[in-house]
This record gives sequence, C-alpha cells and structure tokens, in this order.
Amino acid sequence: MSRLRQVEAHGVMEPTSLQRFIYVLEGRLEASGDTLSAGGFVYYPAGQGQPLRAASPARAAVIEKSYQPLNGFIAPRPFCGCESEVAPQPLLGDPTLEVRSLVPADASFDFAINTMTYQPGATLPMVEIHFMEHGLLMLSGGGIYRLGEHWYPVTAGDFIWMAPYCPQWFGALGKTPAKYLIYKDWNRHPVNEER
Amino acid sequence: MSRLRQVEAHGVMEPTSLQRFIYVLEGRLEASGDTLSAGGFVYYPAGQGQPLRAASPARAAVIEKSYQPLNGFIAPRPFCGCESEVAPQPLLGDPTLEVRSLVPADASFDFAINTMTYQPGATLPMVEIHFMEHGLLMLSGGGIYRLGEHWYPVTAGDFIWMAPYCPQWFGALGKTPAKYLIYKDWNRHPVNEER
Repeated sequence: MSRLRQVEAHGVMEPTSLQRFIYVLEGRLEASGDTLSAGGFVYYPAGQGQPLRAASPARAAVIEKSYQPLNGFIAPRPFCGCESEVAPQPLLGDPTLEVRSLVPADASFDFAINTMTYQPGATLPMVEIHFMEHGLLMLSGGGIYRLGEHWYPVTAGDFIWMAPYCPQWFGALGKTPAKYLIYKDWNRHPVNEER
Repeated sequence: MSRLRQVEAHGVMEPTSLQRFIYVLEGRLEASGDTLSAGGFVYYPAGQGQPLRAASPARAAVIEKSYQPLNGFIAPRPFCGCESEVAPQPLLGDPTLEVRSLVPADASFDFAINTMTYQPGATLPMVEIHFMEHGLLMLSGGGIYRLGEHWYPVTAGDFIWMAPYCPQWFGALGKTPAKYLIYKDWNRHPVNEER
C-alpha cells in the first residue's frame, strides 16, 4: 500500500505493524534520532515501527507492505538514508535516464524502491511487461505514461498503480527533468510464493 | 495532395496542371536553372509547372493542390528557396520549438508550408483543434503524435494526414531534435468558400 501523508509541525506519524518505507517530499521528519528532509528516507521492518515526529510541516510518501519471508534469509533491519547520497546509475547505459536504488540489493527485502530521473526527451527504451506490480509517484517534471493502449499526460503529484503484466512506458516532456519514485515487489518468486 | 517522389539520376519529374510545392529531402533537383539540394524548395502556380531534372538520385516531398482564388488578389508567382536561409521563429516565444515558414505570408497563397523543429522534450503548448487540414511528414527525430484519443509514436519517414477539426498535439522524444514538414490550407474562409 502506498499513500501520501501530510503531517503538521509537531505532529506525529504513528507506527504500523507492517514494514514501512517513508520518503520525505517536503519539510522535516525526525526518525529515531535522525532528521530527514526532502529526499531523506527511512525503513522499518514489520513489527519494528517507530513514530516519526514532524519538526516542520511535512509531506511524505509512505509505502507499507506485508513482509514475505524468504527461506535462508533473515528479515531486514531498519535503515535510513538520503537520496542525494545514492549514486545514480544510467539505465541500460543511457546517461539521460538515471536510476537511484533506495533499498539495498539484498534478497532479504521483498520490494525495491527507486527514483528515476529523465532528461527532457528521455524515454524508457521499450514498453515493459513484467510480473512485478508498481506504485509510482511523480515527483517533478512530467511526460506521457503509457499503460496498455492508454496514454496519460502526467505531472508532479500524479500517482499510478500498475498491475502485474500491465504494459508500461514513459517519455519525459518539458524543459526540466522528469522524476518519479517507484515501488515494485521484488526478490520473491511470483508463482510459487504467495504475493 | 501530398506525396513522396523518388527520382533516379537524370530522371525527370514532369509538371502537373495543379499548383505544386516541392521540398527536396535528399539528392539534387534542377528547377528552372536553380539546383535544389536537401532543404531546397520550389513552387509553381497552377498551369505554370516546369519539369524538374534529377542531377543525382533524389527524393522530394511533393504537395499539389487546386488553387482557390481570392477576390482582390492576383495568383502567386513561382518562387524557390532554401530552408536554411529562412529565419526560424520560436512558436509563441518558446525557444525549444522553431517554425520556419517556407511560403510567403501573402493572402494570394491558399496554403502554408512550415518546418517545425522541436528540441528533445519540447511539445506543442496545447492540443490544437482548427478548421485547417494538415499533411505532415516527419523529417528527422521522433516523438508522440496525438490525434483525438489516439497516440502514435512517430519517427522520420512517417506521414500523417489530419482532417479539419481533428484534435492534434505533438511532443518530441529522443536525444536529437524532432523535425517535420507541415502543410495547411490557409488564407481562405473555411465556410463561405469552397475548400
């Protein structure tokens, strides 16, 4: 489940029993001693949630998911970070399309969260179809999102849920880069395991 | 009517009785003493056509139309030119979208022909709906053309005919500018006069 949360100054975001990933869009949130500002993120495993206190009016994207264990792997531990400290990777060698992975590449995690930044005119190199679902939040800029045979002009603030196997493609239009935050289920077998 | 013509070296494009605008895509065409290469163009009024001889294998976009006179204006005269000598105008002040008008702004002409060059990410600023029809030939680059509720990835060599009142929009995608040649009927009243 993905949602946007808005917290007033000194307000508190109470913990949940689900695993939770929080990405700060605006303002400042205090998380277990760290202060997160725009681009900051924090992860709490299932059953280890902590309250977050707003040091200023804040907005955050909140992603919650039932944890799906994997034999041979222990459950992940909490972590926090800042997107600006994550090295960007060009998608399939394309320097106009940068991916930042906010969740470690570790099979103990059953999901991945990336930001993707497109220079104007940059596009996904193909229409993708895959077993993962996506939750996507446009952070800045805009473009055209194609879902199956439907084409949607999208801009900052728009949210898209993509079902598994939904054909999908994006192209960035405008004079400034387009950027989104994207979640996917990951590291689990789509057939043999319960989603 | 718009069409692409391909002429072998020393081949001849015979004249027509209709008014005709020819835009050279590739190779060299000799037109009434002038040699036109890529980007060169020539116009012949109705009944004043001349043969064009290919000085090398050549390809050209050829636009032919019945001439619709206008009271108080004499019919236009032949002219030729080269696109690179036409000053680009930013569309509605947008420096990422340049228009070059290949036909003089003179109401004796019943049509207009422009090239439009989009930097990557540039778009028409709105979905347009108007009484003019269009013939459009993609010259280079690509992007998404929207016609009504249909969206088409387009690239160099694609041709689009747009009926009057067809909602239309374009956004340029890719790493190089997108450019097209576009015809419209022009300078005549769409209702009181015969199309």
